[in-house]
Amino acid sequence: LKEYRLAFIGFGNVGKAVVRLFMEKEDELKQRYQISYKITGVATQSHGTAIDPNGLDPKALLDASDINQFSKITADSPIDFLNKVPADVLFENTPVNYETGLPAVDHLRAALLAGMHAITANKGPIVNAYSELSELAKQQGRKFFFESTVMDGAPIFSTFRAALPAANVKSFQGILNSTTNMILTRMEMGESFDQAVTHCQKIGIAETDPSGDVDGWDASVKVVALTTVLMGSPLKPSQVERKGIREISAADIEAARQQGKRWKLVCSAKRTPMGIQAVVRPELIGTDSPLYNVNGTSSIVQFETDVLGLLSIVEDNPGPHTTAYGLFADFLNSVVSS
Amino acid sequence: LKEYRLAFIGFGNVGKAVVRLFMEKEDELKQRYQISYKITGVATQSHGTAIDPNGLDPKALLDASDINQFSKITADSPIDFLNKVPADVLFENTPVNYETGLPAVDHLRAALLAGMHAITANKGPIVNAYSELSELAKQQGRKFFFESTVMDGAPIFSTFRAALPAANVKSFQGILNSTTNMILTRMEMGESFDQAVTHCQKIGIAETDPSGDVDGWDASVKVVALTTVLMGSPLKPSQVERKGIREISAADIEAARQQGKRWKLVCSAKRTPMGIQAVVRPELIGTDSPLYNVNGTSSIVQFETDVLGLLSIVEDNPGPHTTAYGLFADFLNSVVSS
Repeated sequence: LKEYRLAFIGFGNVGKAVVRLFMEKEDELKQRYQISYKITGVATQSHGTAIDPNGLDPKALLDASDINQFSKITADSPIDFLNKVPADVLFENTPVNYETGLPAVDHLRAALLAGMHAITANKGPIVNAYSELSELAKQQGRKFFFESTVMDGAPIFSTFRAALPAANVKSFQGILNSTTNMILTRMEMGESFDQAVTHCQKIGIAETDPSGDVDGWDASVKVVALTTVLMGSPLKPSQVERKGIREISAADIEAARQQGKRWKLVCSAKRTPMGIQAVVRPELIGTDSPLYNVNGTSSIVQFETDVLGLLSIVEDNPGPHTTAYGLFADFLNSVVSS
Repeated sequence: LKEYRLAFIGFGNVGKAVVRLFMEKEDELKQRYQISYKITGVATQSHGTAIDPNGLDPKALLDASDINQFSKITADSPIDFLNKVPADVLFENTPVNYETGLPAVDHLRAALLAGMHAITANKGPIVNAYSELSELAKQQGRKFFFESTVMDGAPIFSTFRAALPAANVKSFQGILNSTTNMILTRMEMGESFDQAVTHCQKIGIAETDPSGDVDGWDASVKVVALTTVLMGSPLKPSQVERKGIREISAADIEAARQQGKRWKLVCSAKRTPMGIQAVVRPELIGTDSPLYNVNGTSSIVQFETDVLGLLSIVEDNPGPHTTAYGLFADFLNSVVSS
């Protein structure tokens, strides 16, 4: 039985769901992978920080509103925490900043330098520091994995990394932003744009200011994550030709319906002689497209490669538990050889 | 640069496509994986057998109608060939026998015993000897991989093996037989059943006796491959509740069309308190299903697991080159760590 020491920075819905998944899978990890775990540190923005080299109680961490009480070692900043916590892996789940990737990039760098595998669901570091962090991970003999940054826990990066060797992506298209897809689905059900946004805010998939989703920024960042990692082209989000869904009216939705079609916010990228052409924009989709049936919070990406016909991956019913699985899978894929 | 020695038993369209892929990817293998290769042996049923420890000329092998002329060592049977050929990997592509898995099982066993990785696109060995061959591979420190047995080169087994650790399949449904799907698509275009079968024979995806496809046997065998490998339940094909597409008439197709639906030969399996319930049968599929848009030779499988929402993998435009990629990927996944 090999024991792994886990550290968390950021401990909201997703971080907590990761801990619950470790608890649920505890026996399976032992029997199938000969792996046990202990949580040696958790650092949060507003609920305190705890380090205990002997392991913190997972249940207590999930229930407590202040975790300072459990700490055996004090840390006065996230970087101080990373220097002091004895851990084999960091799960980084702080709020995303697309412009700089900070503070996530600093946390991931410090974790790798301290000899940890660095795992995140945060898109900021991919967009701002993919090359640096990948190179550092390689030098350190550790992994920098980020499966949950695109399509939650659905295996996109890991499939190309571990299942599709020597496959080169020529283009892709997909629906990668759940919030706009849900808004469009609700509008098809007769809601106004504003009602649909309110619904998304109520179920926790849209921010108070929904512009990051509605104006296509989140989708653009995901396109960039895919072009960076799978096409070797680190675009900036501003290089994605971008149009959101604000201009789609109830009348547009109804006109599409009468033609048997649907509006979808389509993400795409393709290699051209002038480089990668990346686009996020609403498109009219007919029943002959695999995108037609991808509704609500579901998502899809379809890849054109040099070795297969079109290959599509579709995920239905995502949530914090599926994002958590992506992080959990990144951990196992870091420490278990297939 | 590490050189791998490749052996082939069965050298039809797929075997030849594997060699072409190695030739196309020669530079990429060197640069990206530090791998080179040579073909040390090829055994065919009616075009001779050749062994050369120094490597056979790939172009000559592809062009020759009799390959005995290239041989430095004679072998008088496939097993004798496997005992004499110096190789690191066997690509097994003899015709499938679902009842016994022979002779493929014998070839794969001999290859593993001789210290080779054993790779096949042949479903017979999965249905008849999955447990034995997997166990033997483990003992020998070699791999027994078979990605191309289901959905050609689309990554199904490798995704679960290498990208979805600790994920448990609860059920799946899909369209796994290209020939029947093409027949149904052609019937929607106005052809009779017989005309559609003739078309499939003409493009090389149906046998002279099409009953293996039309009566759902091939689909049942694929269901069994998935339940055996991904659900730990080695059913026999006869345990799959099976109904083919012979009874679907032009009138049925038209009646479905008028309801906005399509007939599809649906493969499914699910865990129940009484064990795995596996079914292959025609079903009426509406536009709300991801199966609706999977037409012609395309295929889909949708998995329900304990860790994600529904996860679907869809492959369009398969052919000998995509089956070949599955075998090629199995080779790389055997020798390269991700």
